[in-house]
Amino acid sequence: MNVPLVVDTDTAQDDCVALLAALLDPRADLRAITMVAGNVGFDRQVRNAFLTLNAAGRLGEVPVHLGCRRPLVRPWESAENVHGDGVGGLDMDLTGCAPEEEHAVDALVRLAAQRPGELSVVAIGPLTNIAMAAAKDPDFPRNLRALYVMGGSNNGRGNITAAAEFNFYVDPEAAKTVFAAGFPVTVVPWDPVTLRQAVFGTERLAEISALGTPLAGFFTRVCAATLEFDRRVGIEGTTHPDSLTVALLLRPELLRRAAGYHVDVETAGELTRGYAAMSWGVHGRAANAAVVEEVDAAGFFGYLRDLLARPVVPSRPFAAPR
Amino acid sequence: MNVPLVVDTDTAQDDCVALLAALLDPRADLRAITMVAGNVGFDRQVRNAFLTLNAAGRLGEVPVHLGCRRPLVRPWESAENVHGDGVGGLDMDLTGCAPEEEHAVDALVRLAAQRPGELSVVAIGPLTNIAMAAAKDPDFPRNLRALYVMGGSNNGRGNITAAAEFNFYVDPEAAKTVFAAGFPVTVVPWDPVTLRQAVFGTERLAEISALGTPLAGFFTRVCAATLEFDRRVGIEGTTHPDSLTVALLLRPELLRRAAGYHVDVETAGELTRGYAAMSWGVHGRAANAAVVEEVDAAGFFGYLRDLLARPVVPSRPFAAPR
Amino acid sequence: MNVPLVVDTDTAQDDCVALLAALLDPRADLRAITMVAGNVGFDRQVRNAFLTLNAAGRLGEVPVHLGCRRPLVRPWESAENVHGDGVGGLDMDLTGCAPEEEHAVDALVRLAAQRPGELSVVAIGPLTNIAMAAAKDPDFPRNLRALYVMGGSNNGRGNITAAAEFNFYVDPEAAKTVFAAGFPVTVVPWDPVTLRQAVFGTERLAEISALGTPLAGFFTRVCAATLEFDRRVGIEGTTHPDSLTVALLLRPELLRRAAGYHVDVETAGELTRGYAAMSWGVHGRAANAAVVEEVDAAGFFGYLRDLLARPVVPSRPFAAPR
Amino acid sequence: MNVPLVVDTDTAQDDCVALLAALLDPRADLRAITMVAGNVGFDRQVRNAFLTLNAAGRLGEVPVHLGCRRPLVRPWESAENVHGDGVGGLDMDLTGCAPEEEHAVDALVRLAAQRPGELSVVAIGPLTNIAMAAAKDPDFPRNLRALYVMGGSNNGRGNITAAAEFNFYVDPEAAKTVFAAGFPVTVVPWDPVTLRQAVFGTERLAEISALGTPLAGFFTRVCAATLEFDRRVGIEGTTHPDSLTVALLLRPELLRRAAGYHVDVETAGELTRGYAAMSWGVHGRAANAAVVEEVDAAGFFGYLRDLLARPVVPSRPFAAPR
Ligand SMILES: [Ca+2]
Ligand SMILES: [Ca+2]
Ligand SMILES: [Ca+2]
Ligand SMILES: [Ca+2]
Repeated sequence: MNVPLVVDTDTAQDDCVALLAALLDPRADLRAITMVAGNVGFDRQVRNAFLTLNAAGRLGEVPVHLGCRRPLVRPWESAENVHGDGVGGLDMDLTGCAPEEEHAVDALVRLAAQRPGELSVVAIGPLTNIAMAAAKDPDFPRNLRALYVMGGSNNGRGNITAAAEFNFYVDPEAAKTVFAAGFPVTVVPWDPVTLRQAVFGTERLAEISALGTPLAGFFTRVCAATLEFDRRVGIEGTTHPDSLTVALLLRPELLRRAAGYHVDVETAGELTRGYAAMSWGVHGRAANAAVVEEVDAAGFFGYLRDLLARPVVPSRPFAAPR
Repeated sequence: MNVPLVVDTDTAQDDCVALLAALLDPRADLRAITMVAGNVGFDRQVRNAFLTLNAAGRLGEVPVHLGCRRPLVRPWESAENVHGDGVGGLDMDLTGCAPEEEHAVDALVRLAAQRPGELSVVAIGPLTNIAMAAAKDPDFPRNLRALYVMGGSNNGRGNITAAAEFNFYVDPEAAKTVFAAGFPVTVVPWDPVTLRQAVFGTERLAEISALGTPLAGFFTRVCAATLEFDRRVGIEGTTHPDSLTVALLLRPELLRRAAGYHVDVETAGELTRGYAAMSWGVHGRAANAAVVEEVDAAGFFGYLRDLLARPVVPSRPFAAPR
Repeated sequence: MNVPLVVDTDTAQDDCVALLAALLDPRADLRAITMVAGNVGFDRQVRNAFLTLNAAGRLGEVPVHLGCRRPLVRPWESAENVHGDGVGGLDMDLTGCAPEEEHAVDALVRLAAQRPGELSVVAIGPLTNIAMAAAKDPDFPRNLRALYVMGGSNNGRGNITAAAEFNFYVDPEAAKTVFAAGFPVTVVPWDPVTLRQAVFGTERLAEISALGTPLAGFFTRVCAATLEFDRRVGIEGTTHPDSLTVALLLRPELLRRAAGYHVDVETAGELTRGYAAMSWGVHGRAANAAVVEEVDAAGFFGYLRDLLARPVVPSRPFAAPR
Repeated sequence: MNVPLVVDTDTAQDDCVALLAALLDPRADLRAITMVAGNVGFDRQVRNAFLTLNAAGRLGEVPVHLGCRRPLVRPWESAENVHGDGVGGLDMDLTGCAPEEEHAVDALVRLAAQRPGELSVVAIGPLTNIAMAAAKDPDFPRNLRALYVMGGSNNGRGNITAAAEFNFYVDPEAAKTVFAAGFPVTVVPWDPVTLRQAVFGTERLAEISALGTPLAGFFTRVCAATLEFDRRVGIEGTTHPDSLTVALLLRPELLRRAAGYHVDVETAGELTRGYAAMSWGVHGRAANAAVVEEVDAAGFFGYLRDLLARPVVPSRPFAAPR
């Protein structure tokens, strides 16, 4: 099996881990990285993507396309309080690391149209680029084999507010658009899947750290800020929504249970901006998405650990952290 | 211990069971029943309240006050598809069963003001009367010892929509008002508490039925319609949100865990009308309510079973169901 | 002709003038003044009502009932930046000036029910009391002969925001409720009627001032703050929405044109809180209100001037302004 | 003077007249026509654009770019009840009439970037393409010399609802985005400018008809459906919002008065979808647009009449109307 894919990302912390999986998993055929406004400053995210390409020893091998620098309708809101710079202060000589000329939206449309039904997109940031691509090319949704989305909660806790998860909160109009556009969507929600099944506690983090590889060191560094933040909000460990989403696409055997839901996103509430209304079949609305309900948590950890155990050497040396 | 209380109710199914508890628990000193628009037609609900007084053998002993016949701002929406007539077709000679002249809102205000700090109110329907009482008398909230509210979900599933529980959905403006008014509120949410900890499955229902008392017969009849509906929506048994709420006030030993939350209610969303935004302390909003998180489920069942086992004789004979 | 009426008011500036009309016009039979949260602090408004009764020489003759101290759902917002204390610093010995025990909502319901079809209510503040009365007694709307409401704009400019007029903005839920409740409503909007047809410029104000009566002095003093504010926002003169509304009830000959509209009030928008959607018959919605479109502006001025020319002596001397 | 411009249009009725002006006014240098979802079916609109190019005798001379086939977030809503097919049944041999390969959004971005500060865009349909272009290229707004927008009402009547004008109603998210994006915008509102100053009554229509030119015949035919609709809703004549907007760009001497406003668009209301909140400087919000308040109505009519008097011959013969 070989999975041609694009990862659409607001690269910080677990986005980096997700990119590692998309770069290093032998099943993955990563065609492009597309950048979208989200976690931290846009240009910082682009740097982070190149730093991750470097960590994977693949600098210069995968095109990076710049996409939308702000949400469709709303001003951009950062999560820098959670993520810091998004890579734990890592740095490197970025000479020659240049994104493509082609806009991310155009790259998405083009890559999907080249071989209809083959490309998968994993969207692990706000859905601005994806919504734009669907608005620009009505065929885009049906040209994809699959769209995997990290976002929302399945009638559970949000993170940025009680009601909403960050990705949908930041660009609720884009998220709403995506669920109405006819994509073959699979959703990996924050609660319960990420929050209850993909948290790495002290023991697991130690296990990774003990691997001693450059990749494990990279992982430890980029996840440090999240760990600290998570502890402040009562989560005992690092959270891995984005890498889980990539993993579920590449390793479907990690999926325990998914179900059809009608998913729509609130854009108009006073308290509920970005809330994902996920209806499970009793309110008369037809399913438009598969929502992941349970994963093989241990399997997912093992998957990442094995990936990080690989003796990959960075393309260039990293600078000492500032 | 003796608990002076008023039950504010849209009497149908489990509201009847809740009233039985408030009428028969020796710890309860039920000062009044106040009626509010909700589950089924208002006049039907009033009948159901008198039928329940009759089942408890206390016809004529507790005043029934009529309150608001519709929500504060929105048209009334019924849940008759769930509840039918709300009492499984029970009937009786209602001669002389007359509600009080005094409006429910005035009764609430008066009873609370008589001895400030002593009265508890258990609100098991939409919060219209409670909001009206607070709007009419700004002292009403602080005159109460406690306000127990059945409503909302704690970052979980709704019932009438994916986002919302029925009581808050029907009158979201009232619910919003109540949480801003300074009441000493305890909330018993639909999910997880009711939905996961207060469902009576086949076995428990059989145990009650086997009691053979008139009260058990009354219980079985009034709960039949809910049981059928619940099965259609995937809940294996009858749900007891309202009687659980009364029980938690009268028998605090049934409470396993509650926590402070900031609760607010959405009135403006397209998908989220009546959604309860319950924030658990990480979003910078101060707690304004205690939300019940876990109850002694077996203890609650035992409490109701023992209550229904009592050899209470109806004040008047019930008519054969139509 | 004799018009039994209640004026529901947030007494400040033109509310005072409106009360003068209701107190002194020989056609008016003012049964009660009911107070509602609005322009300035509630207790300040009550003082202003007594000051106005005094100016009219009728202290002690008309009952004053206290109503809701805040809007139905939202926190109270003042317009003290417009109105100052609402009476230009006037003061008096208020000994013995006590409001009634009975709540304004109950007084409204009672007075309407006493002789169904006879009482008119003129609502010149936020509609909280009126909505509460309709919620408490579903017969209240049809027990009235007429409800005259000052509020909204007829597809024109607001004042407190571009979209909204103050009375509807402060309690949009109440306003929405009133237009759905079946009242025989006549609306006097801010724009165009008040803003373009009931402004008193320098010349008219001088004409009133020159009358030299105590009433004219009272008028000049209470309107001074509005005059100053209006000039800052580009209105050349004082505005008289409330007194115009009373005048139109008492002197229907001042009405030039009114038309049927479907009126509803926005409670959910981000920019449009309290916006009055007035549909003129082409959007398929049936009329639920008569909206005043044109008045006899000169006639209205003459009416007030003649009223203020009357040699009425205050019940008690006013204190020198602070 | 020579004005390089693009017209972004949902071509039907007055959009055709607007295109005629942009095609025939010697001051206009029309670089492209970009198509956006709006009045009637998208493909029908494209036909109408080619029919208009034909009427102007310029078939094949101006590129037509296809843009978004639906609004950013919402499903498309047509105004076919107003416009019919949009050209009064006109037809022709469309052989060889092909739109460009390049998407309208890309064309807009490219043409603006080619010579920054020179291009004007006249947007006379929903603002979907314009918002997309700004989302794709943050420089797009500042690369334009001017953006002229037909849409909204200046605190006046809407048309599709009491609150909203069609263009903003159909894609309120796009309109909101445009006013936040930093464009040098001039707005030509429906009310009062179009509704009260750009209506052609029987006399003017007769004057045009009497011209006897092919262009006058084209005008008469395409405007017939609007005329009929307008009469049904109480407007005595045809309305010319779109051609007025083009005219104001090309002939600034037709402008009598414009003023700075803060314009924002409601996306969240229950009654006010697409409402343009236009604040005139007293609510503390800085101006982000010039709003046209008064035009030289007679001058505008004269301008169009003279244009239609020109003896232009269609590129191809029109077919007899079906
Ligand atoms: Ca991410
Ligand atoms: Ca209930
Ligand atoms: Ca007032
Ligand atoms: Ca148009």
